[in-house]
Amino acid sequence: MAKLGDALTEVLIPLAAVIGIGFAVLQWILVSRIRLSSGPVEKNGRPENLVGGEPEEDEEEGVDGPASVIKCAEIQSAISIGATSFLITEYKYLAVFMVIFGVIIFLFLGSVKGFSKDSQPCTYSKDRMCKPAVANAAFSTLAFLLGSLTSVLSGFLGMKIATYANARTTVEARKGVGRAFIAAFRSGAVMGFLLAANGLLVLYISINLFKIYYGDDWEGLYESITGYGLGGSSMALFGRVGGGIYTKAADVGADLVGKVERNIPEDDPRNPAVIADNVGDNVGDIAGMGSDLFGSYAESSCAALFVGSISSFGIDHNFSAMSYPLLISSMGIIVCLFTTLVATDFFEIKSVKQIEPSLKWQLVISTVLMTGGIAIVSFVALPSKFTLFNFGEDKTVKNWHLFFCVSVGLWAGLIIGYVTEYFTSNAYRPVQAVADSCRTGAATNVIFGLALGYKSVIVPIFAIAIAIYVSFSLASMYGIAVAALGMLSTIATGLSIDAYGPISDNAGGIAEMAGMSRKIRERTDALDSAGNTTAAIGKGFAIGSAALVSLALFGAFVSRAGIDFVNVLSPKVFIGLMVGAMLPYWFSAMTMRSVGSAALKMVEEVRRQFNTIPGLMEGTTKPDYATCVKISTDASLRKMIPPGALVMLTPLIAGTFFGVETLAGVLAGALVSGVQVAISASNTGGAWDNAKKYIEAGVSEHAKTLGPKGSDPHKAAVVGDTIGDPLKDTSGPSLNILVKLMAVESLVLAPFFAAHGGLLFKWFR
Amino acid sequence: MAKLGDALTEVLIPLAAVIGIGFAVLQWILVSRIRLSSGPVEKNGRPENLVGGEPEEDEEEGVDGPASVIKCAEIQSAISIGATSFLITEYKYLAVFMVIFGVIIFLFLGSVKGFSKDSQPCTYSKDRMCKPAVANAAFSTLAFLLGSLTSVLSGFLGMKIATYANARTTVEARKGVGRAFIAAFRSGAVMGFLLAANGLLVLYISINLFKIYYGDDWEGLYESITGYGLGGSSMALFGRVGGGIYTKAADVGADLVGKVERNIPEDDPRNPAVIADNVGDNVGDIAGMGSDLFGSYAESSCAALFVGSISSFGIDHNFSAMSYPLLISSMGIIVCLFTTLVATDFFEIKSVKQIEPSLKWQLVISTVLMTGGIAIVSFVALPSKFTLFNFGEDKTVKNWHLFFCVSVGLWAGLIIGYVTEYFTSNAYRPVQAVADSCRTGAATNVIFGLALGYKSVIVPIFAIAIAIYVSFSLASMYGIAVAALGMLSTIATGLSIDAYGPISDNAGGIAEMAGMSRKIRERTDALDSAGNTTAAIGKGFAIGSAALVSLALFGAFVSRAGIDFVNVLSPKVFIGLMVGAMLPYWFSAMTMRSVGSAALKMVEEVRRQFNTIPGLMEGTTKPDYATCVKISTDASLRKMIPPGALVMLTPLIAGTFFGVETLAGVLAGALVSGVQVAISASNTGGAWDNAKKYIEAGVSEHAKTLGPKGSDPHKAAVVGDTIGDPLKDTSGPSLNILVKLMAVESLVLAPFFAAHGGLLFKWFR
Repeated sequence: MAKLGDALTEVLIPLAAVIGIGFAVLQWILVSRIRLSSGPVEKNGRPENLVGGEPEEDEEEGVDGPASVIKCAEIQSAISIGATSFLITEYKYLAVFMVIFGVIIFLFLGSVKGFSKDSQPCTYSKDRMCKPAVANAAFSTLAFLLGSLTSVLSGFLGMKIATYANARTTVEARKGVGRAFIAAFRSGAVMGFLLAANGLLVLYISINLFKIYYGDDWEGLYESITGYGLGGSSMALFGRVGGGIYTKAADVGADLVGKVERNIPEDDPRNPAVIADNVGDNVGDIAGMGSDLFGSYAESSCAALFVGSISSFGIDHNFSAMSYPLLISSMGIIVCLFTTLVATDFFEIKSVKQIEPSLKWQLVISTVLMTGGIAIVSFVALPSKFTLFNFGEDKTVKNWHLFFCVSVGLWAGLIIGYVTEYFTSNAYRPVQAVADSCRTGAATNVIFGLALGYKSVIVPIFAIAIAIYVSFSLASMYGIAVAALGMLSTIATGLSIDAYGPISDNAGGIAEMAGMSRKIRERTDALDSAGNTTAAIGKGFAIGSAALVSLALFGAFVSRAGIDFVNVLSPKVFIGLMVGAMLPYWFSAMTMRSVGSAALKMVEEVRRQFNTIPGLMEGTTKPDYATCVKISTDASLRKMIPPGALVMLTPLIAGTFFGVETLAGVLAGALVSGVQVAISASNTGGAWDNAKKYIEAGVSEHAKTLGPKGSDPHKAAVVGDTIGDPLKDTSGPSLNILVKLMAVESLVLAPFFAAHGGLLFKWFR
Repeated sequence: MAKLGDALTEVLIPLAAVIGIGFAVLQWILVSRIRLSSGPVEKNGRPENLVGGEPEEDEEEGVDGPASVIKCAEIQSAISIGATSFLITEYKYLAVFMVIFGVIIFLFLGSVKGFSKDSQPCTYSKDRMCKPAVANAAFSTLAFLLGSLTSVLSGFLGMKIATYANARTTVEARKGVGRAFIAAFRSGAVMGFLLAANGLLVLYISINLFKIYYGDDWEGLYESITGYGLGGSSMALFGRVGGGIYTKAADVGADLVGKVERNIPEDDPRNPAVIADNVGDNVGDIAGMGSDLFGSYAESSCAALFVGSISSFGIDHNFSAMSYPLLISSMGIIVCLFTTLVATDFFEIKSVKQIEPSLKWQLVISTVLMTGGIAIVSFVALPSKFTLFNFGEDKTVKNWHLFFCVSVGLWAGLIIGYVTEYFTSNAYRPVQAVADSCRTGAATNVIFGLALGYKSVIVPIFAIAIAIYVSFSLASMYGIAVAALGMLSTIATGLSIDAYGPISDNAGGIAEMAGMSRKIRERTDALDSAGNTTAAIGKGFAIGSAALVSLALFGAFVSRAGIDFVNVLSPKVFIGLMVGAMLPYWFSAMTMRSVGSAALKMVEEVRRQFNTIPGLMEGTTKPDYATCVKISTDASLRKMIPPGALVMLTPLIAGTFFGVETLAGVLAGALVSGVQVAISASNTGGAWDNAKKYIEAGVSEHAKTLGPKGSDPHKAAVVGDTIGDPLKDTSGPSLNILVKLMAVESLVLAPFFAAHGGLLFKWFR
């Protein structure tokens, strides 16, 4: 038996979640001390505005006085209103989807035993009786709805926090780069901790509520709880795709006319698409990323719980051991809490150069501390020896095996993070070589950028492969599931530095729009540049964990569908593999084209405004921001449906008409191909972005020969940056959701496919 | 028993090969009637020059008189000398590789039974005795060398024919577009028929020679003959990569300075890189493509023969049935012969508009006729019922099943061809939409182009998947192998229209360089534009057949290695799948970067010449062509080695250290991922090229709004075209060789891996 008593487990998990939420609230309070007004100014309609706070005795300079702060507050308010209204419209669409898909889940799963209300023998311990299939259908649907709502809440909260923090970061930049960094980072932490703790808490409460009905039937309990992961990821898909199209349509459209044709700076308030662009950062990068990582976290927890429920500790009803995945996440929250304090309280950022190292150290510190944390949890929560179910065979596992499984996932994540940084930060050779290729124009820039993205795939794939091999060898599919959880165990820190990026980006935009001095803008630019790299690292994590999660889900699906092996040499499997490997391309084609055509519309509108509104270029008239916001909104809502449908319908069609073997092939194919496309797309985009920034900043001798802004190499770099936008912020990051969502959907609907699937092959027989 | 007697089979196969060679010689004679001189002009040192021929009474105009013909002959001579000298240097490198790899094959295979000279029990019919393993090692090595030499010969002959035909096409263009088309098409046919017939003949002779030693041991005989496929494809790899880097370094370099910076037309004789560019077309597109398709043909024949040798007709020594793959190819030569006559003799091309349909009809006619041909061969050569070996089980197959297998491959090829045309020809919406996106600059052009490439993958993958499912269900791996052969059965026609492309491209280049009139250049441009689409179709075929071939080889490898199933859920297999799916990216990163950096060098050199050679821009001084040729040569020879090594070493390392299961995973992963990357890369590149041509030609109202040459949209289109160059002519087409070469190498070395592989896992156990 485990050293940790069940009663203590029941206390520790919610306690960690509550501590996480408390810490998030504390950070929020600290951020909220930054005043967005300097005196008794009217501020109607802006709910985030604060009266009071510390006196601003430490402001460094007078140029950016109260007037510019008011300006910041106004812009912030516009961004916040835009983002909120977009998300609310988006969620209306998603509510319809949730209802429809909830009905599908219920009907598919209910029909497995013809909606019979009789108890049935359990699948894995045949001598016991389990709850009826129709109950699993109902609870899976309920879990799906809970997961969806939590995901939506995560995205929405993230957006609220980010739009609350962006202008405050700008305002703090007046007092020094360190203060601004702390403001942005703390806000990121609010989001990180709130999401991690919230995800854990809802899952924990759901399990306990479901247990009231399920009692001893843990098989049914943890099977229905997988619906939570499905809900989380399906919302994330639409969030990512919709938000991604929104943000990049605005960004590409704004850049093509503003930077290229009109030669005005990025985020210039004269550009009609500038508000849409900044709204986009919050709905795409923040809300989308929040939903995405929440989805990964929910799925890997569900996969581990499901596989655990059919292990010896599941069958013996050892609650502490069963809750191992949740305890790992709880430990993660505590570890990340200390890690955050290192950045915000133990050390102080004094110069621009310290920003990037400080963020990178967060990753290292959390990883090292967490390794110890995993050891503790593994030794107290698990029995020293237990049996796992491994596709028809039993496998004996020791508790220190699981320590290695979780750790290998955690460290693989760190390696992926570092490789991503190497390939996307302009401090290293690869991006500098891409920048250098701008000398001969946009074409060579694109050729070198694509080659860089392809190359950046190599090490992450080996890292993932090693993690898979080690964790699978030690503890079968349970090992993979907890390895994924290991990679995500420091999710609070990962999300903090991830959210930091778009917040800084917005802060820079607000500084530009509020017409603040060059000094302030240099500071926010430095924050933003570091944020670019951390955003790429965050995407690396998201992809790496998605790969492990989907493999775990895939394994769980195969178990649940009653297949003992998936033979590549079977034609049914091979055609699935082939078509599955094609899906990421089909999906990317849709999303890229959507961004492209929405951007074309945006360009036309921006050009129209510049051509027809007198005084716009001179800055005497305000542009019509609202039309641009509408173009982005309409495009993203309309165009998120086809790619979403592709992902959601593929498992349904493959499973129903071609059966579980073909579906298994599709999942494996999509996984091995999608990971490559996702990593290369997001790193190529990140590299182009930073190559451009490298030329603009002109810090080194080499960079100076390429610049300044407006030079031919710089123009070539801007072309690359624009191409990279949909790659890194729409297609790339959506692909990891494609991969895991198809897997979790297959897992949830596995009983149906196993019972009634493969119609086409049945007809032809 | 089969209706066709063994003796008749022994006659029919070489007869078809001889007819094919005879037809090629006839076409050559017809092309050679075109005189490259108009009277008694001195022509020292040009071996292809011809005295005599028909009088030129049908010349349409006087402007491009004898002087320009002499000029054409001079340029042709320079291109021919450049291409010959490059290929000879390349072949010296390849000779070293052949010797080293020949030794590796002999040592690896010889060591399977410790170089013992004793006979051994056969693998598949245990009661019989087969030849010793060391004999198989020796004969596999010999077959490898034969395959290598045939491949090299194919490439070299192709290049010789193309460089012989290019100027003759230009000269014929003076007499009308129909005459020029016939000249280019006939020359393509010389290459197509020579390669198809030659490949068949050498394989047939080798089998008969090997039989002298092997006698009744068909298992050993057809096992060693697989070395032929390995030889063919390994030469093709270096040919494609080396030639691809050569041609695109020159092309990109020439365009970046000539078209973009100096605003001079493509192929302008003042551009120092122009000769290298035209040489490149011949060494890359012609020699590379020739070796590539020969390799596919050799491999699918070998895969089918190997799988056939362990079927009931193999074990019963039914030679006619055993020679079914060769008979299909023989029939293909005869069918293609008739098809060619349709284009050259039955109908006459009278206007530019008829060119593309005429080429497309070639595909349709050959496919329809061949379907009948397959029926005949299937019914006369095969027993009405026989047994195939299917991973440990026997499978009973009827002769009409095989008819369906071959036909489904053939028709899948046609579908792939048509889809490729739809996505790359500027007669249809997709390319027009890409051209339209140039309105907003290079960035949107690239975004739309990439999306188009991704989208173009969908239908071909479904076509391949259906072909795989049907042929596998009917006749296991033998079905797949003959489906691949079906797709390649019309290879003579495929290669004809494929070679037509670069010949027309060169003809246009020569017309430009010789300063011929606008009318002539319009005609050659029309030929070239049709050639662009057919080149893309050819690449589609090459990729589709490569997918089927590698699956067949993969199946043969798995049989040979004694694995009964390849389970995705085994960690050894899964990590292989993951890493295998990554290889196409690694490979593309290398080749793209190589083209990029060689192009940068070329740009510097071209700029240097324009800046330092007085009178160059005015056309009074000749540029230094030789230095540019040297840059391309050096870059391609040096940079073809790392990607080549990646492909050749991966199976060796995976098999030796990780064993056959991981290697099986690597092969499957590389196959399912590589096909997607290859198709999307070559279609994206083809679309960009034709989008540019669409704007330049300005035929429709829509096209006119985007042009003319030199407009902003046109400049954006040129950027896309330049990026597409390495994608469509270096990375894309090399990837199908990567896929099949790794499979055939694994098959040849399978006995070694099965006996001694997986060292790493053995050490750790």
